[in-house]
Amino acid sequence: MDTSKKTIIVFSGDFDRVMAAFIIANGAAAMGDDVTMFFTFWGLNALRKPEKVRVKEKKSALQAMFGKMMPRGPGKMGLSKMNFAGMGAPLMKKVMKDQNVMSLDELMASAREQGVKLVACTMTLDVMGFKKEELIDGLEYAGVAAYLGEADEANVNLFI
Amino acid sequence: MDTSKKTIIVFSGDFDRVMAAFIIANGAAAMGDDVTMFFTFWGLNALRKPEKVRVKEKKSALQAMFGKMMPRGPGKMGLSKMNFAGMGAPLMKKVMKDQNVMSLDELMASAREQGVKLVACTMTLDVMGFKKEELIDGLEYAGVAAYLGEADEANVNLFI
Amino acid sequence: MDTSKKTIIVFSGDFDRVMAAFIIANGAAAMGDDVTMFFTFWGLNALRKPEKVRVKEKKSALQAMFGKMMPRGPGKMGLSKMNFAGMGAPLMKKVMKDQNVMSLDELMASAREQGVKLVACTMTLDVMGFKKEELIDGLEYAGVAAYLGEADEANVNLFI
Repeated sequence: MDTSKKTIIVFSGDFDRVMAAFIIANGAAAMGDDVTMFFTFWGLNALRKPEKVRVKEKKSALQAMFGKMMPRGPGKMGLSKMNFAGMGAPLMKKVMKDQNVMSLDELMASAREQGVKLVACTMTLDVMGFKKEELIDGLEYAGVAAYLGEADEANVNLFI
Repeated sequence: MDTSKKTIIVFSGDFDRVMAAFIIANGAAAMGDDVTMFFTFWGLNALRKPEKVRVKEKKSALQAMFGKMMPRGPGKMGLSKMNFAGMGAPLMKKVMKDQNVMSLDELMASAREQGVKLVACTMTLDVMGFKKEELIDGLEYAGVAAYLGEADEANVNLFI
Repeated sequence: MDTSKKTIIVFSGDFDRVMAAFIIANGAAAMGDDVTMFFTFWGLNALRKPEKVRVKEKKSALQAMFGKMMPRGPGKMGLSKMNFAGMGAPLMKKVMKDQNVMSLDELMASAREQGVKLVACTMTLDVMGFKKEELIDGLEYAGVAAYLGEADEANVNLFI
Protein backbone atom coordinates (compact mmCIF):
# COMPACT_ATOMS: atom_id res chain seq x y z
CA MET A 1 0.00 0.00 0.00
CA ASP A 2 1.40 3.36 -1.01
CA THR A 3 1.44 6.00 1.64
CA SER A 4 0.78 9.58 0.79
CA LYS A 5 0.03 12.81 2.55
CA LYS A 6 -3.23 14.56 3.33
CA THR A 7 -3.89 17.98 4.83
CA ILE A 8 -7.14 19.26 6.29
CA ILE A 9 -7.76 22.87 7.27
CA VAL A 10 -10.32 22.84 10.06
CA PHE A 11 -11.76 26.35 9.83
CA SER A 12 -15.19 25.50 11.18
CA GLY A 13 -15.92 25.07 14.86
CA ASP A 14 -19.16 23.20 14.25
CA PHE A 15 -19.35 19.82 15.94
CA ASP A 16 -20.49 18.03 12.79
CA ARG A 17 -17.82 19.55 10.53
CA VAL A 18 -15.02 18.87 13.01
CA MET A 19 -16.35 15.32 13.33
CA ALA A 20 -16.20 14.88 9.54
CA ALA A 21 -12.63 16.19 9.54
CA PHE A 22 -11.54 13.64 12.15
CA ILE A 23 -13.34 10.77 10.42
CA ILE A 24 -11.40 11.51 7.23
CA ALA A 25 -8.15 12.00 9.15
CA ASN A 26 -8.53 8.72 11.01
CA GLY A 27 -9.44 6.88 7.82
CA ALA A 28 -6.39 8.19 6.02
CA ALA A 29 -4.09 7.48 8.94
CA ALA A 30 -5.45 3.93 9.12
CA MET A 31 -4.49 3.51 5.47
CA GLY A 32 -0.93 4.54 6.30
CA ASP A 33 -1.08 8.15 5.16
CA ASP A 34 0.61 11.11 6.81
CA VAL A 35 -2.14 13.48 7.90
CA THR A 36 -1.82 17.06 9.08
CA MET A 37 -4.78 19.02 10.41
CA PHE A 38 -4.53 22.81 10.66
CA PHE A 39 -6.97 24.35 13.14
CA THR A 40 -7.72 27.97 12.38
CA PHE A 41 -10.40 30.54 13.19
CA TRP A 42 -13.39 28.79 14.86
CA GLY A 43 -11.75 25.40 14.37
CA LEU A 44 -9.25 26.25 17.08
CA ASN A 45 -12.05 25.87 19.64
CA ALA A 46 -11.86 22.11 19.09
CA LEU A 47 -8.41 22.17 20.67
CA ARG A 48 -9.33 24.11 23.81
CA LYS A 49 -9.23 22.40 27.16
CA PRO A 50 -12.74 21.96 28.57
CA GLU A 51 -11.93 23.75 31.82
CA LYS A 52 -11.15 27.42 32.35
CA VAL A 53 -7.38 27.88 32.55
CA ARG A 54 -5.86 30.74 34.53
CA VAL A 55 -3.27 32.50 32.36
CA LYS A 56 -0.67 35.04 33.41
CA GLU A 57 -0.67 37.26 30.34
CA LYS A 58 -3.44 39.79 30.19
CA LYS A 59 -6.11 39.49 27.50
CA SER A 60 -7.96 42.42 26.03
CA ALA A 61 -11.63 42.81 26.96
CA LEU A 62 -12.62 41.63 23.49
CA GLN A 63 -10.34 38.61 23.64
CA ALA A 64 -11.76 37.71 27.05
CA MET A 65 -15.28 38.04 25.63
CA PHE A 66 -14.55 35.88 22.57
CA GLY A 67 -12.86 33.31 24.80
CA LYS A 68 -15.86 33.23 27.10
CA MET A 69 -18.50 32.99 24.38
CA MET A 70 -16.79 30.43 22.17
CA PRO A 71 -17.00 26.72 23.07
CA ARG A 72 -14.22 25.20 25.17
CA GLY A 73 -13.45 21.98 23.33
CA PRO A 74 -15.58 19.59 21.29
CA GLY A 75 -17.95 18.88 24.17
CA LYS A 76 -19.40 22.37 23.94
CA MET A 77 -19.57 22.80 20.16
CA GLY A 78 -22.89 23.07 18.34
CA LEU A 79 -24.20 21.73 15.06
CA SER A 80 -24.01 23.67 11.78
CA LYS A 81 -27.66 22.71 11.15
CA MET A 82 -30.60 21.85 13.40
CA ASN A 83 -28.72 23.10 16.42
CA PHE A 84 -31.99 23.83 18.27
CA ALA A 85 -30.38 26.34 20.60
CA GLY A 86 -27.71 23.83 21.57
CA MET A 87 -29.91 20.74 21.87
CA GLY A 88 -29.00 19.42 18.41
CA ALA A 89 -25.46 18.35 19.26
CA PRO A 90 -26.44 16.14 22.24
CA LEU A 91 -29.19 14.53 20.12
CA MET A 92 -26.72 13.94 17.29
CA LYS A 93 -24.24 12.43 19.76
CA LYS A 94 -26.99 10.16 21.06
CA VAL A 95 -27.93 8.76 17.61
CA MET A 96 -24.25 8.33 16.80
CA LYS A 97 -23.63 6.45 20.03
CA ASP A 98 -26.67 4.25 19.41
CA GLN A 99 -25.07 3.27 16.10
CA ASN A 100 -21.68 2.61 17.70
CA VAL A 101 -20.03 5.49 15.86
CA MET A 102 -16.90 6.68 17.67
CA SER A 103 -17.43 9.89 19.62
CA LEU A 104 -15.51 13.02 18.67
CA ASP A 105 -13.37 12.62 21.79
CA GLU A 106 -12.55 9.06 20.75
CA LEU A 107 -11.86 10.15 17.18
CA MET A 108 -9.47 12.82 18.42
CA ALA A 109 -7.68 10.35 20.69
CA SER A 110 -7.47 7.81 17.90
CA ALA A 111 -6.12 10.38 15.46
CA ARG A 112 -3.36 11.30 17.88
CA GLU A 113 -2.52 7.66 18.58
CA GLN A 114 -2.24 7.11 14.84
CA GLY A 115 0.17 10.02 14.53
CA VAL A 116 -2.09 12.59 12.91
CA LYS A 117 -0.37 15.95 13.34
CA LEU A 118 -2.56 18.62 14.95
CA VAL A 119 -1.41 22.15 14.23
CA ALA A 120 -2.83 25.26 15.89
CA CYS A 121 -2.83 28.42 13.77
CA THR A 122 -0.63 30.97 15.51
CA MET A 123 -2.44 33.94 13.96
CA THR A 124 -5.75 32.79 15.41
CA LEU A 125 -4.02 32.22 18.73
CA ASP A 126 -2.79 35.83 18.70
CA VAL A 127 -6.12 37.27 17.57
CA MET A 128 -8.20 35.36 20.10
CA GLY A 129 -5.63 35.79 22.83
CA PHE A 130 -5.45 32.06 23.54
CA LYS A 131 -2.37 30.89 25.41
CA LYS A 132 -0.78 27.49 24.80
CA GLU A 133 -1.73 26.31 28.28
CA GLU A 134 -5.40 26.78 27.37
CA LEU A 135 -5.11 24.29 24.53
CA ILE A 136 -4.69 20.52 24.77
CA ASP A 137 -1.15 19.13 24.92
CA GLY A 138 0.86 17.71 22.06
CA LEU A 139 -0.01 20.34 19.45
CA GLU A 140 2.29 21.99 16.97
CA TYR A 141 2.05 25.73 16.35
CA ALA A 142 2.47 27.22 12.90
CA GLY A 143 1.18 29.68 10.34
CA VAL A 144 0.01 29.71 6.74
CA ALA A 145 3.51 29.20 5.29
CA ALA A 146 3.89 25.91 7.14
CA TYR A 147 0.45 24.82 5.94
CA LEU A 148 1.35 25.58 2.33
CA GLY A 149 4.61 23.71 2.65
CA GLU A 150 2.74 20.60 3.75
CA ALA A 151 -0.06 21.03 1.22
CA ASP A 152 2.55 21.11 -1.56
CA GLU A 153 3.63 17.61 -0.51
CA ALA A 154 0.11 16.24 -0.15
CA ASN A 155 -2.20 14.74 -2.76
CA VAL A 156 -5.45 15.59 -0.96
CA ASN A 157 -6.01 19.01 0.65
CA LEU A 158 -9.40 19.82 2.12
CA PHE A 159 -10.85 22.97 3.67
CA ILE A 160 -13.57 22.15 6.17
CA MET B 1 -8.08 16.46 -24.02
CA ASP B 2 -6.71 14.56 -21.04
CA THR B 3 -9.23 13.02 -18.75
CA SER B 4 -8.66 12.96 -15.05
CA LYS B 5 -10.57 12.30 -11.88
CA LYS B 6 -12.36 14.62 -9.49
CA THR B 7 -13.98 13.90 -6.14
CA ILE B 8 -16.41 16.11 -4.25
CA ILE B 9 -17.55 15.50 -0.68
CA VAL B 10 -21.03 16.96 -0.33
CA PHE B 11 -21.26 17.49 3.43
CA SER B 12 -23.65 20.43 3.29
CA GLY B 13 -27.37 20.04 2.75
CA ASP B 14 -27.84 23.67 1.74
CA PHE B 15 -29.51 24.15 -1.62
CA ASP B 16 -26.89 26.61 -2.84
CA ARG B 17 -23.90 24.51 -1.82
CA VAL B 18 -25.33 21.33 -3.31
CA MET B 19 -26.08 23.31 -6.47
CA ALA B 20 -22.44 24.49 -6.65
CA ALA B 21 -21.29 20.89 -6.21
CA PHE B 22 -23.41 19.69 -9.13
CA ILE B 23 -22.35 22.59 -11.36
CA ILE B 24 -18.70 21.64 -10.84
CA ALA B 25 -19.47 17.92 -11.27
CA ASN B 26 -21.35 18.51 -14.53
CA GLY B 27 -18.63 20.78 -15.84
CA ALA B 28 -15.93 18.24 -15.13
CA ALA B 29 -17.95 15.37 -16.59
CA ALA B 30 -18.57 17.44 -19.74
CA MET B 31 -14.80 17.82 -20.07
CA GLY B 32 -14.43 14.04 -19.98
CA ASP B 33 -13.40 13.65 -16.35
CA ASP B 34 -14.41 10.86 -14.00
CA VAL B 35 -16.34 12.45 -11.15
CA THR B 36 -17.33 10.90 -7.84
CA MET B 37 -19.55 12.72 -5.36
CA PHE B 38 -19.71 11.47 -1.77
CA PHE B 39 -22.83 12.55 0.10
CA THR B 40 -22.36 12.58 3.84
CA PHE B 41 -23.99 14.15 6.91
CA TRP B 42 -26.54 16.79 5.76
CA GLY B 43 -25.58 16.30 2.14
CA LEU B 44 -27.31 12.94 2.17
CA ASN B 45 -30.64 14.80 2.25
CA ALA B 46 -30.06 15.71 -1.41
CA LEU B 47 -30.45 12.03 -2.27
CA ARG B 48 -33.70 11.43 -0.41
CA LYS B 49 -36.84 10.69 -2.37
CA PRO B 50 -39.32 13.58 -2.07
CA GLU B 51 -42.13 11.36 -0.81
CA LYS B 52 -42.38 9.60 2.53
CA VAL B 53 -41.34 5.97 2.08
CA ARG B 54 -42.70 3.26 4.36
CA VAL B 55 -39.82 1.11 5.63
CA LYS B 56 -39.95 -2.20 7.39
CA GLU B 57 -37.05 -1.79 9.80
CA LYS B 58 -37.83 0.18 12.89
CA LYS B 59 -36.14 3.53 13.45
CA SER B 60 -35.33 4.96 16.83
CA ALA B 61 -37.40 7.93 18.00
CA LEU B 62 -34.44 10.24 17.37
CA GLN B 63 -33.84 8.84 13.89
CA ALA B 64 -37.52 9.30 13.08
CA MET B 65 -37.33 12.88 14.33
CA PHE B 66 -34.22 13.71 12.32
CA GLY B 67 -35.78 12.09 9.25
CA LYS B 68 -38.92 14.13 9.69
CA MET B 69 -37.21 17.46 10.29
CA MET B 70 -34.57 17.22 7.58
CA PRO B 71 -35.49 18.03 3.97
CA ARG B 72 -36.58 15.19 1.68
CA GLY B 73 -34.60 15.86 -1.47
CA PRO B 74 -33.36 19.04 -3.14
CA GLY B 75 -36.85 20.47 -3.50
CA LYS B 76 -37.09 21.06 0.24
CA MET B 77 -33.58 22.27 0.96
CA GLY B 78 -32.93 25.82 2.17
CA LEU B 79 -30.25 28.38 1.44
CA SER B 80 -27.09 28.76 3.53
CA LYS B 81 -27.66 32.55 3.51
CA MET B 82 -30.75 34.73 3.14
CA ASN B 83 -32.99 31.75 3.72
CA PHE B 84 -35.80 33.99 5.04
CA ALA B 85 -37.47 31.13 6.92
CA GLY B 86 -37.53 29.00 3.78
CA MET B 87 -38.53 31.69 1.29
CA GLY B 88 -34.98 32.29 0.06
CA ALA B 89 -34.63 29.05 -1.88
CA PRO B 90 -37.78 29.56 -4.02
CA LEU B 91 -36.67 33.13 -4.78
CA MET B 92 -33.19 31.92 -5.71
CA LYS B 93 -34.73 29.24 -7.94
CA LYS B 94 -36.84 31.90 -9.61
CA VAL B 95 -33.90 34.20 -10.45
CA MET B 96 -31.94 31.20 -11.67
CA LYS B 97 -34.79 30.05 -13.89
CA ASP B 98 -35.19 33.59 -15.26
CA GLN B 99 -31.55 33.40 -16.34
CA ASN B 100 -31.96 29.94 -17.89
CA VAL B 101 -29.68 28.31 -15.34
CA MET B 102 -30.38 24.59 -15.06
CA SER B 103 -32.38 23.66 -11.99
CA LEU B 104 -30.85 21.42 -9.33
CA ASP B 105 -33.11 18.58 -10.47
CA GLU B 106 -31.86 19.03 -14.02
CA LEU B 107 -28.26 19.26 -12.86
CA MET B 108 -28.66 16.02 -10.90
CA ALA B 109 -30.23 14.26 -13.89
CA SER B 110 -27.52 15.59 -16.19
CA ALA B 111 -24.77 14.48 -13.81
CA ARG B 112 -26.17 10.97 -13.76
CA GLU B 113 -26.55 10.86 -17.55
CA GLN B 114 -22.92 11.92 -17.84
CA GLY B 115 -21.85 9.08 -15.57
CA VAL B 116 -21.06 11.03 -12.42
CA LYS B 117 -20.90 8.50 -9.60
CA LEU B 118 -23.12 9.35 -6.63
CA VAL B 119 -22.06 7.64 -3.41
CA ALA B 120 -24.09 7.66 -0.20
CA CYS B 121 -22.08 7.56 3.03
CA THR B 122 -23.01 4.36 4.85
CA MET B 123 -22.13 5.77 8.26
CA THR B 124 -24.58 8.64 7.81
CA LEU B 125 -27.17 6.15 6.61
CA ASP B 126 -26.73 4.15 9.82
CA VAL B 127 -26.74 7.19 12.08
CA MET B 128 -29.81 8.78 10.52
CA GLY B 129 -31.56 5.45 10.11
CA PHE B 130 -32.17 6.00 6.41
CA LYS B 131 -32.96 2.88 4.40
CA LYS B 132 -31.87 2.44 0.79
CA GLU B 133 -35.47 2.51 -0.41
CA GLU B 134 -35.80 6.04 0.99
CA LEU B 135 -33.01 7.28 -1.28
CA ILE B 136 -33.11 7.72 -5.06
CA ASP B 137 -32.09 4.80 -7.24
CA GLY B 138 -28.72 4.22 -8.86
CA LEU B 139 -26.55 5.17 -5.91
CA GLU B 140 -23.46 3.43 -4.65
CA TYR B 141 -22.93 2.94 -0.92
CA ALA B 142 -19.54 3.27 0.70
CA GLY B 143 -17.54 4.67 3.59
CA VAL B 144 -14.53 6.86 4.16
CA ALA B 145 -12.00 4.23 2.98
CA ALA B 146 -13.63 4.11 -0.45
CA TYR B 147 -13.61 7.89 -0.61
CA LEU B 148 -9.92 8.03 0.22
CA GLY B 149 -9.16 5.40 -2.40
CA GLU B 150 -10.83 7.52 -5.05
CA ALA B 151 -9.33 10.79 -3.79
CA ASP B 152 -5.86 9.24 -4.10
CA GLU B 153 -6.50 8.79 -7.82
CA ALA B 154 -7.99 12.25 -8.36
CA ASN B 155 -6.25 15.54 -9.08
CA VAL B 156 -9.02 17.76 -7.64
CA ASN B 157 -10.70 16.93 -4.32
CA LEU B 158 -13.21 19.36 -2.85
CA PHE B 159 -15.13 19.43 0.43
CA ILE B 160 -18.38 21.34 0.06
CA MET C 1 11.98 27.33 -4.55
CA ASP C 2 9.58 25.54 -6.85
CA THR C 3 6.56 27.47 -7.90
CA SER C 4 3.25 25.78 -8.33
CA LYS C 5 -0.36 26.71 -8.78
CA LYS C 6 -3.20 27.02 -6.29
CA THR C 7 -6.90 27.63 -6.85
CA ILE C 8 -9.47 28.71 -4.31
CA ILE C 9 -13.21 28.78 -4.93
CA VAL C 10 -14.66 31.50 -2.72
CA PHE C 11 -18.29 30.40 -2.44
CA SER C 12 -18.93 31.91 0.97
CA GLY C 13 -19.64 35.58 1.50
CA ASP C 14 -18.84 35.45 5.21
CA PHE C 15 -16.20 37.91 6.32
CA ASP C 16 -14.18 35.30 8.19
CA ARG C 17 -14.19 32.73 5.39
CA VAL C 18 -13.24 35.32 2.75
CA MET C 19 -10.48 36.49 5.10
CA ALA C 20 -9.14 32.93 5.39
CA ALA C 21 -9.18 32.63 1.60
CA PHE C 22 -7.11 35.78 1.17
CA ILE C 23 -4.66 34.80 3.91
CA ILE C 24 -3.96 31.54 2.09
CA ALA C 25 -3.81 33.28 -1.29
CA ASN C 26 -1.34 35.88 -0.03
CA GLY C 27 0.79 33.25 1.64
CA ALA C 28 0.99 31.17 -1.51
CA ALA C 29 1.72 34.20 -3.69
CA ALA C 30 4.48 35.24 -1.30
CA MET C 31 6.02 31.79 -1.79
CA GLY C 32 6.05 32.35 -5.54
CA ASP C 33 2.95 30.36 -6.45
CA ASP C 34 0.39 31.25 -9.11
CA VAL C 35 -2.93 31.72 -7.34
CA THR C 36 -6.38 31.98 -8.87
CA MET C 37 -9.44 32.79 -6.77
CA PHE C 38 -12.90 32.11 -8.23
CA PHE C 39 -15.68 34.11 -6.61
CA THR C 40 -19.05 32.49 -6.98
CA PHE C 41 -22.48 32.64 -5.32
CA TRP C 42 -22.23 34.68 -2.07
CA GLY C 43 -18.48 35.05 -2.50
CA LEU C 44 -19.08 37.47 -5.36
CA ASN C 45 -20.23 40.02 -2.78
CA ALA C 46 -16.59 40.42 -1.74
CA LEU C 47 -15.89 41.95 -5.15
CA ARG C 48 -18.73 44.51 -5.12
CA LYS C 49 -17.89 48.18 -4.96
CA PRO C 50 -18.96 49.64 -1.61
CA GLU C 51 -21.09 52.36 -3.19
CA LYS C 52 -24.34 51.98 -5.11
CA VAL C 53 -23.58 52.06 -8.85
CA ARG C 54 -26.17 53.27 -11.34
CA VAL C 55 -26.44 50.75 -14.17
CA LYS C 56 -28.16 51.13 -17.53
CA GLU C 57 -29.47 47.61 -17.97
CA LYS C 58 -32.65 46.85 -16.12
CA LYS C 59 -32.63 44.30 -13.30
CA SER C 60 -35.58 42.15 -12.37
CA ALA C 61 -37.34 42.95 -9.11
CA LEU C 62 -35.78 39.88 -7.51
CA GLN C 63 -32.30 40.76 -8.73
CA ALA C 64 -32.72 44.28 -7.36
CA MET C 65 -33.84 42.83 -4.04
CA PHE C 66 -30.93 40.40 -3.80
CA GLY C 67 -28.55 43.19 -4.77
CA LYS C 68 -29.96 45.43 -2.08
CA MET C 69 -29.98 42.85 0.69
CA MET C 70 -26.56 41.36 0.05
CA PRO C 71 -23.44 43.13 1.35
CA ARG C 72 -21.63 45.54 -0.96
CA GLY C 73 -17.99 44.56 -0.54
CA PRO C 74 -16.01 43.17 2.39
CA GLY C 75 -16.82 46.14 4.63
CA LYS C 76 -20.43 45.03 4.94
CA MET C 77 -19.97 41.28 5.25
CA GLY C 78 -20.88 39.45 8.45
CA LEU C 79 -19.32 36.58 10.36
CA SER C 80 -20.27 32.94 9.83
CA LYS C 81 -20.42 32.55 13.63
CA MET C 82 -21.09 34.95 16.50
CA ASN C 83 -22.35 37.57 14.10
CA PHE C 84 -24.51 39.17 16.83
CA ALA C 85 -26.83 40.82 14.31
CA GLY C 86 -23.88 42.38 12.50
CA MET C 87 -21.83 43.42 15.54
CA GLY C 88 -19.53 40.39 15.36
CA ALA C 89 -17.59 41.50 12.29
CA PRO C 90 -16.57 44.91 13.70
CA LEU C 91 -15.51 43.26 16.95
CA MET C 92 -13.50 40.67 15.03
CA LYS C 93 -11.90 43.42 12.97
CA LYS C 94 -11.00 45.23 16.18
CA VAL C 95 -9.25 42.24 17.79
CA MET C 96 -7.46 41.57 14.51
CA LYS C 97 -6.28 45.16 14.25
CA ASP C 98 -5.10 45.08 17.87
CA GLN C 99 -2.92 42.12 16.93
CA ASN C 100 -1.59 43.84 13.80
CA VAL C 101 -3.26 41.35 11.47
CA MET C 102 -3.76 42.84 8.01
CA SER C 103 -7.33 43.92 7.34
CA LEU C 104 -9.35 42.24 4.61
CA ASP C 105 -9.00 45.37 2.47
CA GLU C 106 -5.24 45.22 2.89
CA LEU C 107 -5.16 41.50 2.18
CA MET C 108 -7.15 42.06 -1.02
CA ALA C 109 -4.84 44.87 -2.12
CA SER C 110 -1.77 42.79 -1.29
CA ALA C 111 -3.14 39.79 -3.19
CA ARG C 112 -3.65 41.92 -6.27
CA GLU C 113 -0.20 43.48 -5.99
CA GLN C 114 1.26 40.00 -5.78
CA GLY C 115 -0.54 38.99 -8.97
CA VAL C 116 -3.27 36.79 -7.50
CA LYS C 117 -5.89 36.38 -10.23
CA LEU C 118 -9.42 37.28 -9.11
CA VAL C 119 -12.12 35.71 -11.27
CA ALA C 120 -15.81 36.56 -11.03
CA CYS C 121 -18.22 33.72 -11.85
CA THR C 122 -20.25 34.79 -14.88
CA MET C 123 -23.20 32.56 -13.98
CA THR C 124 -23.55 34.23 -10.59
CA LEU C 125 -23.24 37.59 -12.32
CA ASP C 126 -26.14 36.68 -14.60
CA VAL C 127 -28.29 35.23 -11.83
CA MET C 128 -27.80 38.13 -9.45
CA GLY C 129 -28.00 40.70 -12.24
CA PHE C 130 -24.68 42.28 -11.27
CA LYS C 131 -23.04 44.41 -13.96
CA LYS C 132 -19.27 44.65 -14.35
CA GLU C 133 -19.31 48.32 -13.35
CA GLU C 134 -20.73 47.30 -9.96
CA LEU C 135 -17.67 45.17 -9.23
CA ILE C 136 -14.14 46.33 -8.47
CA ASP C 137 -11.75 46.82 -11.39
CA GLY C 138 -9.14 44.39 -12.62
CA LEU C 139 -11.22 41.22 -12.42
CA GLU C 140 -11.41 38.42 -14.94
CA TYR C 141 -14.75 36.89 -15.83
CA ALA C 142 -15.19 33.18 -16.42
CA GLY C 143 -17.27 30.09 -15.76
CA VAL C 144 -16.84 26.60 -14.39
CA ALA C 145 -14.89 25.31 -17.42
CA ALA C 146 -12.19 27.93 -16.90
CA TYR C 147 -12.02 27.03 -13.21
CA LEU C 148 -11.59 23.34 -14.01
CA GLY C 149 -8.88 24.13 -16.54
CA GLU C 150 -6.90 25.96 -13.87
CA ALA C 151 -7.61 23.39 -11.16
CA ASP C 152 -6.19 20.69 -13.43
CA GLU C 153 -2.89 22.56 -13.44
CA ALA C 154 -2.83 23.24 -9.70
CA ASN C 155 -1.60 21.07 -6.84
CA VAL C 156 -3.85 22.60 -4.18
CA ASN C 157 -7.55 23.30 -4.84
CA LEU C 158 -9.73 24.54 -2.01
CA PHE C 159 -13.46 25.26 -1.75
CA ILE C 160 -14.17 27.87 0.90
